[in-house]
Amino acid sequence: MSNHEHLQQHVDDICRRARPAARALAILDDDRRRAGLRAAAQAVAQAEARILAANAEDLAAAQDQGLSAAMCDRLRLDPERLAGIVGDIGRVAGQPDPVGRVLEERTIAQDLQLRKISVPIGVIAIIFESRPNVTVDTAALCLRSGNACILRGGKEAVHSNRALAAAFAEGLASAGIPADAVQLVGEQDRALLPLLLARDQDIDLVVPRGGEGLIRAVVEMSRIPVVKHDKGVCSLYVHAAADQDMALRLIVNAKCQRPGVCNAIENLLVDEAILAQFLPRLATVMAQEGVRLRADRQCQPLLPGSEAASESDWSTEYLDLTLAVAAVRDVAAAIDFTNTYGSGHSDGIISADEVAAAAYLRGVDSAAVYRNASTRFTDGGMFGLGAEVGISTNRLHARGPMGAADLCTYKYVVEGQGQARS
Amino acid sequence: MSNHEHLQQHVDDICRRARPAARALAILDDDRRRAGLRAAAQAVAQAEARILAANAEDLAAAQDQGLSAAMCDRLRLDPERLAGIVGDIGRVAGQPDPVGRVLEERTIAQDLQLRKISVPIGVIAIIFESRPNVTVDTAALCLRSGNACILRGGKEAVHSNRALAAAFAEGLASAGIPADAVQLVGEQDRALLPLLLARDQDIDLVVPRGGEGLIRAVVEMSRIPVVKHDKGVCSLYVHAAADQDMALRLIVNAKCQRPGVCNAIENLLVDEAILAQFLPRLATVMAQEGVRLRADRQCQPLLPGSEAASESDWSTEYLDLTLAVAAVRDVAAAIDFTNTYGSGHSDGIISADEVAAAAYLRGVDSAAVYRNASTRFTDGGMFGLGAEVGISTNRLHARGPMGAADLCTYKYVVEGQGQARS
Repeated sequence: MSNHEHLQQHVDDICRRARPAARALAILDDDRRRAGLRAAAQAVAQAEARILAANAEDLAAAQDQGLSAAMCDRLRLDPERLAGIVGDIGRVAGQPDPVGRVLEERTIAQDLQLRKISVPIGVIAIIFESRPNVTVDTAALCLRSGNACILRGGKEAVHSNRALAAAFAEGLASAGIPADAVQLVGEQDRALLPLLLARDQDIDLVVPRGGEGLIRAVVEMSRIPVVKHDKGVCSLYVHAAADQDMALRLIVNAKCQRPGVCNAIENLLVDEAILAQFLPRLATVMAQEGVRLRADRQCQPLLPGSEAASESDWSTEYLDLTLAVAAVRDVAAAIDFTNTYGSGHSDGIISADEVAAAAYLRGVDSAAVYRNASTRFTDGGMFGLGAEVGISTNRLHARGPMGAADLCTYKYVVEGQGQARS
Repeated sequence: MSNHEHLQQHVDDICRRARPAARALAILDDDRRRAGLRAAAQAVAQAEARILAANAEDLAAAQDQGLSAAMCDRLRLDPERLAGIVGDIGRVAGQPDPVGRVLEERTIAQDLQLRKISVPIGVIAIIFESRPNVTVDTAALCLRSGNACILRGGKEAVHSNRALAAAFAEGLASAGIPADAVQLVGEQDRALLPLLLARDQDIDLVVPRGGEGLIRAVVEMSRIPVVKHDKGVCSLYVHAAADQDMALRLIVNAKCQRPGVCNAIENLLVDEAILAQFLPRLATVMAQEGVRLRADRQCQPLLPGSEAASESDWSTEYLDLTLAVAAVRDVAAAIDFTNTYGSGHSDGIISADEVAAAAYLRGVDSAAVYRNASTRFTDGGMFGLGAEVGISTNRLHARGPMGAADLCTYKYVVEGQGQARS
């Protein structure tokens, strides 16, 4: 058998198992799905020794291959992190049932009763990199919402992912739920991906989570609908009528609290009217926080130690302690700048002016728009969605933080007494 | 300039104009959008002579090329049909505003106020065949929901589409709305399609409407999210506890009233318990209606004049007066048959039994599931959505009849008093 045939057979096998599992899950009661999650949590906890041993193998290989300390840290599991993962499953089990909600209900033509009801999507493939907790989090969210999932993790975490997925599936099976509800792609060959992403009859949704390269590749290859979790080029706009102390506090929070995440800011827009007053204070605070500044021609002279920004800076996701600063004439210019250069993730205005704030909140076309708050709140937990699959940068189906409810679609149920269309 | 360069330039030009128009539309008040639609309706009505002359050119070309009478009929406009199209625009203008609805509202972490608000998707491309009314209907629905649209119609209707789109855009411009809000792709070369469908930065959604070939091609080529309007292989299931008179009436309606549409039935499932009693009556009624029957081995002997069905019949969209008939053991078998062979469009059970009906409505995974009613009701107008973009066979974003509200996405608006994430 050629390698291609081998990969094809592996994909065929996974796809063949997924749909029956999805059909079985779709009609399971909430109690059964929650019991399955609790059994999975218990099984993962009980497999601790096995999981940590597998993780040690991955870490050893990572060190051999010279992966960065940051990468190794993302990969590492320890008893505390594993307890956190187990706790996450419990929290997902505790969320309200996203399935079977009546979204709309009305009497339509000829007195037919129509209800629009949330139902699982079906089979969901998650393509992700490095962090092994994603394996369990996404499996739990898929099960909570009645979906079967196909998980394809990164090569670095292969042993950890296998141990975690095996324990999770054993837990499900012990609660009478088909173990095929959670399938891990065993084969690590990259040539498998296009074969998997061609199966639009068998897989209903693909969620890529990871770097830009992975996401681009999935979008280009996939015939299956994709909800992507792409980069965040976020900004804050300090309006002329801003409380400048508040502005400085929020900039520090949005830039420095965790610079490596997608809802941290990369750009700061400052109203022309307050440049002379605000920028020197900004320079002092940013220097204290160790933030490098790149500024446009108007701002640079007022920001000691800043470098000149080029146009590409406005669309760059630094993911570190660098901040690009630009002057804008007014709210309209701030909106235009944000819509042009930002990635439509999370952006905010700091202003005490109701009219300016309303124009900004309406005009900025991002998944989350803020007034007088840090962009760092864009997160399923913070938004009250429970655990999250990630933060969608799609405009369709799900936008922004994506929870279990976003893993549902709907159907129309129409009940009559013999009505025919005339 | 090579043909490829010429097409590329045409696509570049269209894409460059679309986003600014979408940004302008997104912040227009409802009154302005409705005024734009009324002006467009008036402009289309006033351009009657020009539009009918253009349509006559298309019809002459169609007859020269030997298009079928049915195709020519779909292409034909007359004063009455044009008045219908104008009336449709008015009805879309009269629908409630789908933009700016507060979908969710709650207090989240640290007393932040969160609202989830419906907003336009942005730029929508509609790829369609033959019927010129689609040009105007989809332009009206896109404008109603604040979206810019790029329309690509069929070659047969090129003159009609140009005249309609030009009148529509003139109407918009007269009401102060950017004419680029509605752009018709002028170039008919099929090589343009892949160039257009690669522009995922400029176009947010593609809706293909037409035959299977068109839809498959769009899904395969597109990097842009697709909501497809694919075929309907629909069924009715006559349960053992059915009112058989009602069943016969509904079968006649669902099969015969308009056999060429996607919500007509192709399959009939009959409970084993009532074969001997029900099938002879079915045969008589179907013969009166001129319906040809293809039946499985259990049913064929009880259906005089029927042919033997093969497995491929169960997944065939006949679009004519042919009906495939199969016996099923019970509700579970009916559900399984429908989920296996149907296209997930519209399916129904006829039964007086509450338990059986509930199991069917829950278990059948279709966009619309019916009890004791004809499947022919699956339609935006009938469901109370107003005019429809079509009937989505996607599971994501929009499923089933798709109205103006389904041309919206949402954003989260978060307002605070200086909250930073801790």
